[in-house]
Amino acid sequence: VLELRDRVLVFGRRVWRIGADDPRRAVHGLKVGLALALVSVFYYTRPLYDGVGGAAMWAVLTVVVVFEYTVGGCVYKGFNRAFATASAGVVALGVHWIASKSGDEVEPFIRSGSVFLLAAMATFSRFIPTVKARFDYGVTIFILTYSLVAVSGYRVGALLAMAQQRVSTISIGVSICIAVCTLICPVWAGQELHRATARNMEKLAGAVEACVEDYFAAEDEASNKQPSSKAEGYKCVINSKASEDSQANLARWEPGHGGFAFRHPYAQYRNVGAAMRHCAYCVEALSGCVRSAEIQAAPASTRRLLADACTRVAARCAGVLRAASTSVAEMTTSRGLDLAVGDMNAAVQELQDDLRALPSKLLLAEATAGSALVGAAQLFTITSLLIEVSARIEGVVDA
Amino acid sequence: VLELRDRVLVFGRRVWRIGADDPRRAVHGLKVGLALALVSVFYYTRPLYDGVGGAAMWAVLTVVVVFEYTVGGCVYKGFNRAFATASAGVVALGVHWIASKSGDEVEPFIRSGSVFLLAAMATFSRFIPTVKARFDYGVTIFILTYSLVAVSGYRVGALLAMAQQRVSTISIGVSICIAVCTLICPVWAGQELHRATARNMEKLAGAVEACVEDYFAAEDEASNKQPSSKAEGYKCVINSKASEDSQANLARWEPGHGGFAFRHPYAQYRNVGAAMRHCAYCVEALSGCVRSAEIQAAPASTRRLLADACTRVAARCAGVLRAASTSVAEMTTSRGLDLAVGDMNAAVQELQDDLRALPSKLLLAEATAGSALVGAAQLFTITSLLIEVSARIEGVVDA
Repeated sequence: VLELRDRVLVFGRRVWRIGADDPRRAVHGLKVGLALALVSVFYYTRPLYDGVGGAAMWAVLTVVVVFEYTVGGCVYKGFNRAFATASAGVVALGVHWIASKSGDEVEPFIRSGSVFLLAAMATFSRFIPTVKARFDYGVTIFILTYSLVAVSGYRVGALLAMAQQRVSTISIGVSICIAVCTLICPVWAGQELHRATARNMEKLAGAVEACVEDYFAAEDEASNKQPSSKAEGYKCVINSKASEDSQANLARWEPGHGGFAFRHPYAQYRNVGAAMRHCAYCVEALSGCVRSAEIQAAPASTRRLLADACTRVAARCAGVLRAASTSVAEMTTSRGLDLAVGDMNAAVQELQDDLRALPSKLLLAEATAGSALVGAAQLFTITSLLIEVSARIEGVVDA
Repeated sequence: VLELRDRVLVFGRRVWRIGADDPRRAVHGLKVGLALALVSVFYYTRPLYDGVGGAAMWAVLTVVVVFEYTVGGCVYKGFNRAFATASAGVVALGVHWIASKSGDEVEPFIRSGSVFLLAAMATFSRFIPTVKARFDYGVTIFILTYSLVAVSGYRVGALLAMAQQRVSTISIGVSICIAVCTLICPVWAGQELHRATARNMEKLAGAVEACVEDYFAAEDEASNKQPSSKAEGYKCVINSKASEDSQANLARWEPGHGGFAFRHPYAQYRNVGAAMRHCAYCVEALSGCVRSAEIQAAPASTRRLLADACTRVAARCAGVLRAASTSVAEMTTSRGLDLAVGDMNAAVQELQDDLRALPSKLLLAEATAGSALVGAAQLFTITSLLIEVSARIEGVVDA
């Protein structure tokens, strides 16, 4: 029993942490509850209930299904649901008219056949990338509505009234959702994406610095083998692709808010993200070298020869990334960024000169130290790529 | 008009290619159509329709929402939907009983209050990682059913009958889905995962070889700068995380099939995948080096000194990966894998010796050639890590 209580306590603490880390999550839960409570008012107040009737159920259903964490997600689903329901309803009414004109014998075959065909085609269309990205949910709803209307038309008389009711209840649900989602502590997918991009740049900058520092610090205190948590920062960047893609997809649906216009170039964030990942892969390789170098370390004397230049390159790389991060955060093209790039290039040049001047008898040792060096030289290439991309985004954002 | 026709043609060809690349996608579309047509039979045949009544709509709804591409996805959604509906129904009936005993004044508040509380809690619980991975869909359905039953209890008299009908129609829908999904050309998430893992290993092996070959070939024909498509194979591996995770999640729900038992250790695939990605990051860094080396190439003489050893290491690395791939594909622990690892280690040792013997006056050139070398040495570290993991999986799979 005690063990069970402990487990519950541990679980409870973990859940509490999830909420405490990001209070917006708890707020999101409350928002869903609020939206549902609002919809249920339609059931309790007599005039409203008479207006929509038993179909009020559809409004509840819509709220549950459409409500999403970000505004973009909510608008995306709401729009898809409304549009797909309407279009499927129109098509279904057309088929219904044809089916009801034909004989009683053929009618079920026409209905089922059309459902079969349309469902197969629509499902297949979900494999097309553009459809998948923008209308995935809409296609599901299209199939749903179409088959409901087309099939139930066989038994239900007042199909038109039913369709009308459905449309009105769904629009009630969607508008409640969007209102609650947008007006109470909104979470904008675009803003999230923006912040995540700037934060990832910071993390990457920290990781570059920490990695090189770790390498040269290891000689002083060999006991302290734990890689610093800062050096792990690149891992977030590496795994950011999926969330970035979905956020960019959802952000497209958002109306203008804060500093973001309606047609904010969100695709650029994806490019920057890709460049950052490209950079993060290199940092990962670099940190792998640092870790294996700790096992078979080069003589301290050789290291010291390059320590200065390497550290400087790393610091400058980090500086460029930080400058890019602030310029993204503030959506401005700063002179600071260009200066930082210049500094970095100078530092890399210096490092290359140092390397050339390295006494040749230290060749073997150099091969090991070279790993960090090569990594840095390579980082330079990719960082400059990153800068190009981020410079491009500035141009677009400020245009 | 001509331009429009051209566009339609291009689009049509693209769609056709999607289907031709993987005919199972087209089959999936047909399966959805079939399942819907089967459900609609409930509307047309009198005895069946009398059995379930107007609630047959729920069966249609279930089919549309539950049907997924893989068997695992279908079972996951079906199970979640059935279980969540049943549990939410029970809770809702309890609250309904309490609410109906209280006065008319308080009743709406109890109902809405409970909806608000439960919805908020359930929505929040979706942020907990374990719940997210296994019961995300179930939570949505729980909220949905609970609010439908609890709220409509205010107006509808025969709540119990309604709940019963819902459960029976949903179980009809779920069983039709699972039957069609499993019996007609099933797509097993576990098998997909298995194949993708083996295929990714092959690709990685090809990329390692191609990269090193490109580097040493560039000197012979500098005109041919295009990186071979084989060398790009690692990109698939890098981006495989999201699909691997979701497949491993879904595969857990699948019953035994083919060589896969019910509790097949799918989590191991994720470990292997992570190790492969780890390896792919290095390959990415390596290929970055190769590309930048093409701009400021080392003297051909230096390169030739190391070409043999480097190519051998790359070939052996690829050999190990291929051996691991076949042993994963056949789910056996082969002696061949151990031999391949031994070969690779010997080749790496040779390369290190060659490096040491390199004349010291070629230091500068070495720094550039070293990039490929260091990459290879590092690849070695990580490949051996990969082998460890894959050796572990063999043990688990065959146990």
